[in-house]
Amino acid sequence: MNALGRHLLVELHDCERGALNDLDLIREATIKAAIDCGAVVLGESFHRFSPQGVSGVVVIAESHISIHTWPEFGYAAVDVFTCGTTVNPEIAARVLIERLGAKNHSLTEIPRGVLVTV
Amino acid sequence: MNALGRHLLVELHDCERGALNDLDLIREATIKAAIDCGAVVLGESFHRFSPQGVSGVVVIAESHISIHTWPEFGYAAVDVFTCGTTVNPEIAARVLIERLGAKNHSLTEIPRGVLVTV
Repeated sequence: MNALGRHLLVELHDCERGALNDLDLIREATIKAAIDCGAVVLGESFHRFSPQGVSGVVVIAESHISIHTWPEFGYAAVDVFTCGTTVNPEIAARVLIERLGAKNHSLTEIPRGVLVTV
Repeated sequence: MNALGRHLLVELHDCERGALNDLDLIREATIKAAIDCGAVVLGESFHRFSPQGVSGVVVIAESHISIHTWPEFGYAAVDVFTCGTTVNPEIAARVLIERLGAKNHSLTEIPRGVLVTV
């Protein structure tokens, strides 16, 4: 399929709850995920909520990686959206699955920008 | 379905190509989309590419809105990810569809963080 982007929707369940509330850990893990998959980091924005939860996004030259956590449910929603052939978004997903200690996860790939060229 | 988040994947086709390359317009439209749908803006990161294209994300208290544009194809990929009941992500999608002059679009809603409570 002729798609401009690969978008991985990653559901992380049964994570380490302390990790899900640790802004520094999540920020470092998300940036590491970007770098490890071959992306170029352009910008970032991370925030911790009261009483719990973290949200953050890393904008990369190849699109973005986002994360939102719900420590009370042991759950995090991760998106890895990449374009081009120089990055492997699955590597980024793997970094976050491991760093957050997710015992269960699902990964769905959605092609974005499917251009009809027939 | 008992989901923590609503994630709209919005494909914008046949947009105004000049708009897709206008960093200020896209930044303002994405922030307006957040505010109009009832969200609280926490942070942002926008970038223009050479020779063309813009990427940006607004982190909101309710999750995030992202946009990536391909002016050469008249295409933009928008994500509106929200949690809670105080925001309507469809309003944000509508703002961006209109501001980018998309003559065609598709919108898919993916529930995120589906917790099995049975």
